Amino acid sequence: MASRIFDGLELPASGDFHVHLREGAMLEAVSREIRNGGVETVFVMPNLVPPITTVKHALSYKATIEKHTDVKCLMSLYLHPSMTPETIREAKESGHIYGVKSYPAGVTTNSDSGVVDYEQFYPVFKAMEDEDIVLNLHGEAPPAENITVLNAEEAFLPTLLDLHQRFPRLRIVLEHCTTAAAVEAVKKCGPNVVGTITAHHLFLIVDDWAGDPINFCKPVAKLPSDRVALLKAATSGSPKFFLGTDSAPHPLRAKKGGLGAHDAEKCAAGVFTQPYATQLVLEAFEEAARKGVLEKSDLTPFVLEGFLGDFGRKFYRVEPSGARIKISAREEKVVERLAVGGANAEAGDVVIPFRRNTPIYSLEWLPQKP
Amino acid sequence: MASRIFDGLELPASGDFHVHLREGAMLEAVSREIRNGGVETVFVMPNLVPPITTVKHALSYKATIEKHTDVKCLMSLYLHPSMTPETIREAKESGHIYGVKSYPAGVTTNSDSGVVDYEQFYPVFKAMEDEDIVLNLHGEAPPAENITVLNAEEAFLPTLLDLHQRFPRLRIVLEHCTTAAAVEAVKKCGPNVVGTITAHHLFLIVDDWAGDPINFCKPVAKLPSDRVALLKAATSGSPKFFLGTDSAPHPLRAKKGGLGAHDAEKCAAGVFTQPYATQLVLEAFEEAARKGVLEKSDLTPFVLEGFLGDFGRKFYRVEPSGARIKISAREEKVVERLAVGGANAEAGDVVIPFRRNTPIYSLEWLPQKP
Repeated sequence: MASRIFDGLELPASGDFHVHLREGAMLEAVSREIRNGGVETVFVMPNLVPPITTVKHALSYKATIEKHTDVKCLMSLYLHPSMTPETIREAKESGHIYGVKSYPAGVTTNSDSGVVDYEQFYPVFKAMEDEDIVLNLHGEAPPAENITVLNAEEAFLPTLLDLHQRFPRLRIVLEHCTTAAAVEAVKKCGPNVVGTITAHHLFLIVDDWAGDPINFCKPVAKLPSDRVALLKAATSGSPKFFLGTDSAPHPLRAKKGGLGAHDAEKCAAGVFTQPYATQLVLEAFEEAARKGVLEKSDLTPFVLEGFLGDFGRKFYRVEPSGARIKISAREEKVVERLAVGGANAEAGDVVIPFRRNTPIYSLEWLPQKP
Repeated sequence: MASRIFDGLELPASGDFHVHLREGAMLEAVSREIRNGGVETVFVMPNLVPPITTVKHALSYKATIEKHTDVKCLMSLYLHPSMTPETIREAKESGHIYGVKSYPAGVTTNSDSGVVDYEQFYPVFKAMEDEDIVLNLHGEAPPAENITVLNAEEAFLPTLLDLHQRFPRLRIVLEHCTTAAAVEAVKKCGPNVVGTITAHHLFLIVDDWAGDPINFCKPVAKLPSDRVALLKAATSGSPKFFLGTDSAPHPLRAKKGGLGAHDAEKCAAGVFTQPYATQLVLEAFEEAARKGVLEKSDLTPFVLEGFLGDFGRKFYRVEPSGARIKISAREEKVVERLAVGGANAEAGDVVIPFRRNTPIYSLEWLPQKP
């Protein structure tokens, strides 16, 4: 192990503004891990089966999550034809719903109910603008001729620019940016448009998921130059870019398309980073600094605290709790797997975390000042 | 099922100028399938463990294969530092060794002994030129910064052009072309440089192997425009392009990186097409004609017979046997799996064929004329 530049670093607790917590035994296993990643606030994605399209469903999901964790949950709805401007007003009134997530149809896990055409949602977007509810975009063009997993994000960017122009007061998150083009598009827009960046996309390129189901996610990791653009955006100090891990747990059997001797199905898309959300980001920055991709001098407290929490909290207008975390360089490694137990779990289900069995910073929560 | 344009087509038996037959139980299972794909001649790749680097090993492998099949086997050696000009002369004298396969180090299955730098092999290439032994190139640049699975083939093309210039009489095959750039490079070279094209690359693009271990191979399938370039090259009537399926059987457990509840290894690269070599090519051409990518009128007997066998036989200077095959449109489907039995097989090993359980042309061997 070379120099550990974040050893001893103290930070405000992080925010993770894009998480998948699932339901049942998986929710139980995953929600317990949020604080292990140094995170006190999460923006919870609504792609359950069926998706969360009503305020009532969102609130009952929030109550279920809170049985297992005390982190602050910013809830969301799944953009759906059943949604009306009235839904948005009701969402705002609830005080717990911060965003509406749009999935283009068919591009990722549980997106079958997703959007094909945005025009039908203009009245809903208008209501979101008025009520100051955020639009969270999974920014990939749906499958079509000459659209591939590699250019789907870039092909979506004109839609982002168009929506921003039509609804300039609408606050928009381009979720899990994976390309230099996406970073540039977010920069080009006004301050109402921001982008989240995951921990794993700070590490991965196409080669890392080619033939590796554990590293396979949507949007897929792209080219080395895209990875560099994400690292630079995340450490630019611009409040337009902040952490949303898109941590997406799947049982190993789903990641591999079945574990039976005759199962040959496709792999579920998603990378699981929740237990190490903060630590992985710091590892990625450190590796990039070691390789000369980033300057160590760029990694100021303002930059780190901003990307890991402050910028996201400011965007979503939530207050930090004041809790602080401390990073240490010890002999810790990412665990090999997370067991998914409980009465609802299929026997033997495990989730394989990103960068299993590799060295990782330790994280502890500092005692709260009285 | 739309019109079946090859129903009733009779052809000379095919040649498959790039096959992986493996050893032991897998060899037994796979070699029996060669004739089911309408193939009478195969060029056999040498990437066993350990690789075939001596004439003696190649000949004993040939004898082993011939215990299981009566197809004509063109044998090859694995380009390796232990090889000398004397090895090449010995290979030529054997009468059974047609080529030397070069694997850049680390790019695919069993390529750990592969090439890092070609200069050390110039004396061997000179001997190959003199003895008229073919150089078979796995044309991918080895891993390096800014080299990805997507651009590795294109990054290799200057090496192809350089070798062609240095050894203009050396006959070279750029194996399993996957990009428009590779097709153009092969066209640009003199007649001593040709390219093989697989059946599966006539079907696949990047989206098809993203998260699908069964469709994952090296070189990876690229963009829709690359697939079109391959289809057009394969049906151009140019003798520079002919079939080499690169059929590469792996047990399902290897394709998926293990089938255990805790196995999370990488997937073996390789697509298994052997039992349907000829049929899959015709299916790909038919689909392309149906979608307007190819003209039905381009699919002349000269074009089909050339790509499926004549061009390869002429390049390798082997005679057709005179045997003929017949294609029919029936209710046949690609089998779900191939069992790998025999005393050496691990219990339950199966190989999943490409396009399992999808409709496929039937193929029969016509009775030989007396």
